[in-house]
Amino acid sequence: MSKRLMLLSNSTMHGRGFLDHAAEEIKDFLGDVERLLFVPFALHDREAYAQKVRARFADLGIEVDSLHDVDDEEEAVENALAIFIGGGNTFRLLNTLYELKLIEPIRRRVEGGMPYMGASAGTNMACPTIRTTNDMPIVEPPSFAALNLIPFQINPHYVDPDPSSKHMGETREDRIREFHEMNRIPVLGLREGAWLSVEEPHVELGGATLARLFQPGKPPEEYEPGASLDFLLRKPPAA
Amino acid sequence: MSKRLMLLSNSTMHGRGFLDHAAEEIKDFLGDVERLLFVPFALHDREAYAQKVRARFADLGIEVDSLHDVDDEEEAVENALAIFIGGGNTFRLLNTLYELKLIEPIRRRVEGGMPYMGASAGTNMACPTIRTTNDMPIVEPPSFAALNLIPFQINPHYVDPDPSSKHMGETREDRIREFHEMNRIPVLGLREGAWLSVEEPHVELGGATLARLFQPGKPPEEYEPGASLDFLLRKPPAA
Repeated sequence: MSKRLMLLSNSTMHGRGFLDHAAEEIKDFLGDVERLLFVPFALHDREAYAQKVRARFADLGIEVDSLHDVDDEEEAVENALAIFIGGGNTFRLLNTLYELKLIEPIRRRVEGGMPYMGASAGTNMACPTIRTTNDMPIVEPPSFAALNLIPFQINPHYVDPDPSSKHMGETREDRIREFHEMNRIPVLGLREGAWLSVEEPHVELGGATLARLFQPGKPPEEYEPGASLDFLLRKPPAA
Repeated sequence: MSKRLMLLSNSTMHGRGFLDHAAEEIKDFLGDVERLLFVPFALHDREAYAQKVRARFADLGIEVDSLHDVDDEEEAVENALAIFIGGGNTFRLLNTLYELKLIEPIRRRVEGGMPYMGASAGTNMACPTIRTTNDMPIVEPPSFAALNLIPFQINPHYVDPDPSSKHMGETREDRIREFHEMNRIPVLGLREGAWLSVEEPHVELGGATLARLFQPGKPPEEYEPGASLDFLLRKPPAA
């Protein structure tokens, strides 16, 4: 079976409820899946996070098991009908997936066709590495290598430079330029409100905002909602 | 000899020249040092960076050797009268210090009394780890352990939350709260324009802005320029 992923920039839009901005499309993406495996490890309070997700998906008619309260995590992954990795801190999330030895089991299932939903840190997790996360490195994972479900990087919560800012820290674009001083792989900047639908061999930009694609040695390019980005699934030069 | 460090939040203020906001104090800090060893590894273009630093310190009557164009890096560190580690990407900087096996040589010299100046990533480098950097993890260093010259963490370029922002990414305070979900060590948020002078056993806040101290289980505290922060040199509980 071909891979299916829905990769959201963010789970909540300013002034709206959790996942509200993408609820219709999530329902479409999950289709007749009635039970979802949730991965809460990006946040500290896993139980509170699981309850929030459970309540939200109940509205969509979908039950939720949370990976923090199953007896056997690997077995839960093996038996899942679909998986949702929630946002929070990318380093904490990846570190926990390594601790629980879940990288390969999740990868195998998604490669085999299990639908994968990610938001923010959960979207970083689908990339080859976490080298384009915005998060603070609060814990040290054994490696930056992530699930490698797509052959390019995503930068979630992408923000344009604020011309009125007097802050001298790097802009997001500066940071991605620095990434390309050290790496060759494309980076898609997903602004808040945008998501990427991967239905192999197709990739389509969803949501209400443009996305900005960075490739080494090229000027950045903008893509509109609905744009086909199939070319991103062709293997890039080695990073 | 006791340790002497000058740790700047940032090297450039909006609308001003490189190091202009702290030039007087840098001159005081370096005293009769006539030759400075510069570490340019946080930026990609090391030669351009070294030229900029050389020109700036020439105005202060100080000559600069850059660590990227010496024959033997370890020997250069052994013989340096003072060291300045410049800003840029913290992960790239730390990775290069590991590649060149310079962590211990630099640490030893600073422990022995060689003056250490850092700005931004160079300030992160003085901390026990790089876990409170703001930078994108564009390369993977062998460890997050840094020079460990002070027993607390600094967050450079600290910014207060913008109440008008609709961006849903974590604020800096959110990120430091997440750090304290996983670590016990204090974090000093140095706003742009601030620096820390460490003249063992004394620590004093310098510059023109307040600094914000985060400790686990306590509300954040604000300190004014000129404040004594000697208590930060007492060893905190294990991280």
